[in-house]
This record gives sequence, structure tokens and C-alpha cells, in this order.
Amino acid sequence: MREVAIIGIGQTSVEEHWDKSLRELATQAILDALQEAQRDKVDGIFVGNMMSGMISRQENLGTLIADWAGLRGVEAFKVEAACGSGAAAVHLGVMAIASGYMDSVIAMGVEKMTDTSMPETTAALATAADADFEGDQGVSFVSLNALIMQRYLYEYKWKHTDFAPFSINAHENALNNPNARLHDRISLAEYRKARMICDPINLLDASPTGDGAAAVVLVPLDSLRSNGHARVVIAGSTAATDSIAIHDRKDGLWLSAAYASAQKAYGQAGIQPDDVDLFELHDAFSIMAALSLEACGFAERGQGPRLALDGEICPNGRIPVATRGGLKARGHPVGATGVYQIAEIVQQLRGEAGKNQIQDARIGMAQNIGGSGSNIVTHILKSA
Amino acid sequence: MREVAIIGIGQTSVEEHWDKSLRELATQAILDALQEAQRDKVDGIFVGNMMSGMISRQENLGTLIADWAGLRGVEAFKVEAACGSGAAAVHLGVMAIASGYMDSVIAMGVEKMTDTSMPETTAALATAADADFEGDQGVSFVSLNALIMQRYLYEYKWKHTDFAPFSINAHENALNNPNARLHDRISLAEYRKARMICDPINLLDASPTGDGAAAVVLVPLDSLRSNGHARVVIAGSTAATDSIAIHDRKDGLWLSAAYASAQKAYGQAGIQPDDVDLFELHDAFSIMAALSLEACGFAERGQGPRLALDGEICPNGRIPVATRGGLKARGHPVGATGVYQIAEIVQQLRGEAGKNQIQDARIGMAQNIGGSGSNIVTHILKSA
Repeated sequence: MREVAIIGIGQTSVEEHWDKSLRELATQAILDALQEAQRDKVDGIFVGNMMSGMISRQENLGTLIADWAGLRGVEAFKVEAACGSGAAAVHLGVMAIASGYMDSVIAMGVEKMTDTSMPETTAALATAADADFEGDQGVSFVSLNALIMQRYLYEYKWKHTDFAPFSINAHENALNNPNARLHDRISLAEYRKARMICDPINLLDASPTGDGAAAVVLVPLDSLRSNGHARVVIAGSTAATDSIAIHDRKDGLWLSAAYASAQKAYGQAGIQPDDVDLFELHDAFSIMAALSLEACGFAERGQGPRLALDGEICPNGRIPVATRGGLKARGHPVGATGVYQIAEIVQQLRGEAGKNQIQDARIGMAQNIGGSGSNIVTHILKSA
Repeated sequence: MREVAIIGIGQTSVEEHWDKSLRELATQAILDALQEAQRDKVDGIFVGNMMSGMISRQENLGTLIADWAGLRGVEAFKVEAACGSGAAAVHLGVMAIASGYMDSVIAMGVEKMTDTSMPETTAALATAADADFEGDQGVSFVSLNALIMQRYLYEYKWKHTDFAPFSINAHENALNNPNARLHDRISLAEYRKARMICDPINLLDASPTGDGAAAVVLVPLDSLRSNGHARVVIAGSTAATDSIAIHDRKDGLWLSAAYASAQKAYGQAGIQPDDVDLFELHDAFSIMAALSLEACGFAERGQGPRLALDGEICPNGRIPVATRGGLKARGHPVGATGVYQIAEIVQQLRGEAGKNQIQDARIGMAQNIGGSGSNIVTHILKSA
């Protein structure tokens, strides 16, 4: 199995890109990543995307993007794992390199969510749930998360405001990320009075949608000559699933797929949770941040909010999360999110995270969640 | 790079399965394949599918299918390459095994196309074309192929009826395939008078849509103990792309992605076209059968119909195609088609193709085409 290195990254800003089409956004991230990698071609491209068929009436998306980016001829595939599509594309790209079938890969994610009405976007997001047993009941994606959060508050006796530090930290960290969707500091008072979306999830518990694309260039580590630059290798690349419908779980407050994929990733990387210097988790909703921290071994069950209240998730804390804003403030262009997480970790491991730089960051973990915890992809990156 | 073997296959019939949902169809193929492989679990599942989001309002499809099939927990991904999605899923599954990341994989395809109106299905199929520059003009998928066929007739001076043997052979071969969508012998006279769909493509040039699922179980060859049974190994697994829009091609009558992926596959397998005993090609339209034969080296340019007229594509000919009915008569449930092709070759190489058995079949090639020749996946299977 060949070790895989990331030699280039590209990210567009996350916003309402009304002047850029799906293919243009994707191409911008690709060209930036290729330029950084000093390459002009690759063997294959893996495109993470969830809703191009529904929103943009475009499938055959890998082909389209390869073509528009000037890479006509390469192998090209779209990979879908709901909101986990981006990291899934990276995972499949890693396997393509490790297998020896490909010597260079662009793994990317792109999502164009704002070229339609909000009800259409909400309906498209709901296709991540079980269409026949959840979606058909009119259950939206936020309402599924609200059910989970409601139960969590009841079971572990937290107050809603105990989740505020997750959102406050994310917004704070996004201030220095030019690609972030939101650039506003928020206070506890603002969190408290934020408009309710689906009880108990309010506006400041929820990540904003947006358009965006991110890309990484993957090559075998042994193909690189030493050039004195820090290298980033993928030390762990895994995935796991749980039931797609939350009513099918024995325990709705335990992300078994997060646990399983994290354990596999720790094993591949030969590390423990304590070794992780930063964690780009999937804070689509603040409840998911808490559940991820617990499933991955950073907090005891039911104690995710405690880490946040103690400041341990902040840049100088024990396990910094959302270091460039997370889904909450960088934004959540769903199929692209997992690649943003990985690109942001690359920046941290290279020491290129500016004012958000985590001191001496050597090992970063990214966890991208599809559905209500049903398909979870975990990556561990190391500087080498 | 580990060699990959196919140890189990499953196929549902291709028809209007109004009594079976997307997940039920997929599960049926999976359970059949697992039973044949004598396995009850795998490490990962790769689901080829094009239109579940648009037709069934279901994404997160890998998770859904893993869950319903009793495989909750495994890695699960949907792979989309338009009508080439099925073979793309197999290709990615092959890389997962070859990489060492997985030791067992279900690669499958499923499509549910009849749970909606025909205009909806036609619109969903059109998403395989360039949405902004073809789809938005109202160009349907059949009309793109009609443009290609029209030009071919003009350029190479064939008559429309010269394509009849492709359809006649496919229908003949489907008679003995219980999974085929169509079980009717057709004559030259019937071909001539078939209803025009989009000039020059008539009803008997075009493959029928349908619901269906097919699956294969992949494992590393070296994990198998010798048990005296014939084994089927994947000797070539490749893909290539061309421009997504046909107006962007220098030569609209040359499937450059078919050529490129076939050449790579021949190289991997260490064979020449002459060594291929049967060819499951992508006869979505009869013109595509001709173009595939030419691009893969079985006929000179412009001479695909000659092979057919000479009977060389028939079961006892030089290069039998559509041996179980092909897309034309087995049917074309788009995201599943590529896996049907591979499963049918497995049957041939095992000597289990019944009345359609190709004598002494040792090497079979499958070619699955996404879009109007824009994303093409080629596999070469060998008995070992």
C-alpha cells in the first residue's frame, strides 16, 4: 500500500456565487490546487457532490468538471455520500493512488446550493435521510437534528446555552479565514436570542449553506523528491455507516459510524486521540460537534459541551475544532465541506493558517458526516 | 497491486418493477451475489446509480442500500458517471481491493426509472449531457445520438437498415436470458418499419429503459484457496473521458474515450483485441455499438456495420456482442447496466450462459458508456 501525500490545495470562498456556475467554481478550486502542486495534469478526478442532479440538472459531473478544467481525457467520477461526499471523494482518491492504478489524483468537492429556492434546497438536503420512512413524512434535515438535540438535552441535563461556545468559537475563528461565509463575531447574548429554527436548534446552532468548491492534489509520497518543504501525508482514511434512519438506531445519541471510522483511522495512523493537535469536525449543527467529540474519544459520553464550556475546543485548548470557522461559520456547501476540512488541516500542518495557526500542529483529524450520522468519513493527516 | 477476483454475481430481471422499491431491488441483487460468494459481509459497497436523487428523492444511496441489505456499518458510496455509473462502481471497487484498504467489496448498480412519468425520465437522462450548453437547449439524449448517427450515415455511406443486425442479434440473444427486458425475436422487416423516434434512430435502434440491479462480489485473488472451480479475475479495469458536449469534439464519430480506456485495458491485461472472446458493448443505440467496435479495434473506422452484416457479432462470429441481449434487449437501467455487462461475462467465463454460451470463452470485455461517449469504463475479465 503506497503512502499518499497532499501536494496542493485550492478553495473558493463559500458564499452565494451567483456569478459563477457549478463548473466554474469547481475549476477555480482545481486550478488553484494544480498551481500549488506545480502540475498540469493528473490521472483521475474524484468529485464529491450531493445535489447537482436535483439543483443544477447536471449529472455526469466528473466528466463535466474534468472537461471544463482542461483535463479532458482523465478518469472522472462523481462520489456521493450525502453531506459526507467531499471526504468520500478524497477517500476514494486515496485508494486509487494506494492501489497503483493512479499516480496523481484531484479529489475535490463542489456544491452549488443557491441557484434555486430555499424550499428546493431544503427538499434536496432531505434526500440525505431515508426517503421512504423519513423524507416522505415531511421531516427536514434540521428537524432530524433537532430531535437528536432535544433528546440529548433531556438525557444529559444540559441547557441549550451550554452549546453556545461551539458557535462562538467557530465564528471567532472564521474572522481570519477569507474563504469563510460568515465574518461576524457572536456573543452569548446573541446566541441566546437567536431566532428559533426547529426547537431546540436556533439560527446560531445551524451552519449556513452556500456555494463553494475545494480541491486537493494527491500523489504517492515516494514519488516526491525531498525539497525541504514540509509534507502532508494521509495517515488515516476510513469510513463507516450506521442506519440511514435515526429511528432504526438503538441509541440515537451515539454516532457509531463516527466511532468506528475514527477507531479505524487511529489504527491506520498508529495514534491515540491525545495525539491529535486539531480536529475539523462536522458542526453542521452544534449538537453534531458534541456527538463527534464524544464518539472520537475526546470527551466522555454526554460531556461534549463540557469541553466547549471549558474552552478546550478553542485554538489554544486541548483539542481545537473548527479552526478556520468550521461548517458553522466557514459555511457548509455540502458536497464540498469534507474537502474544505482537509484543505484547512493542510494549511495548519504547513504552518500557513495565519492568525488561526495552531501552535506546533503535527497531526490533524477531519471528520465529515453524511446524513444524520449515517455515513461518516474520517481522515488523519500528518506532517512528515 | 493485488489481483482482484469476482466470486459472486447477482442480477434482478430488468422490467417495470412497480412492486419493488429502489432499496429492495438493490438488496435482491446483493443477497444473490453474497449467497453465491458464500459470504455474509464485506468491507465496502460501491453503488453505481445516476438518478436516485431526481427520480426517487433519495441520495445517501450507499448508506440506504448497505442498511437495507443487512450490511449496516460497512463503508458505502454512490458512484455516478451517468450511464457508465455501474462499471465505474466496479472500477472503484477494484481499486479499493487492489489498494489493500478493503478485502471484500460489493460493487453494484441499481436504477429505478419507471416510478415517474416518461418526460421526467427523459429529462433525468438529459442530465448526462452538458446541462448549460446541450440540456438547456431542449436536446434529449436520443437526439444527441441521432445527430451522431445521421452524420455517420452521411460520412460512411451506410443505409439505416445496415444497422439492423445489431438489434436482431441482441433480441435473439435475449430470448434465453430470463433477466432480459424484451423476449421477442425481431426481423429485418420489423426493423425497417419500426416507429421513428428521432431520425434516423427508430424504436428498434434504441434500448429500453427499465428498473434493475446487478451486483458482483470482489476479493483479492490471493485470498482464495483453490477449490477446483473456474475463477474469474479482473485483468483490466480502466476509464477515460472525452468532452461532455458533442459539439466540442474534433471528430464526433470517434469515441476517443473508448479508444483510450480500451488501450489501457489491453495493456493491463497484456492482450490484443484478437484475444477477446466476447464483447459486452454499450448498445444503448445501434450507432454506439458500431462506434465501440471501431474504437476498440474490432473494426476499421466506418466499418462497424460491416462486422454486423457479416454475422461476426453473433454468438458464433469473430467477436460476439450483446450475448445476453445487450442494452438493446436485456434492457438499460442506466446506473446498473455496467454491472449487468460484467455479471454476464462472468457467466460466460464460467460456462454458465446456457443456450447463449460462447464456446471456449476465456476472455471477455465489457464497455460501459456514460453520456454521449464522454465517460467510458472498460473491463477485461479472464478465467483463471
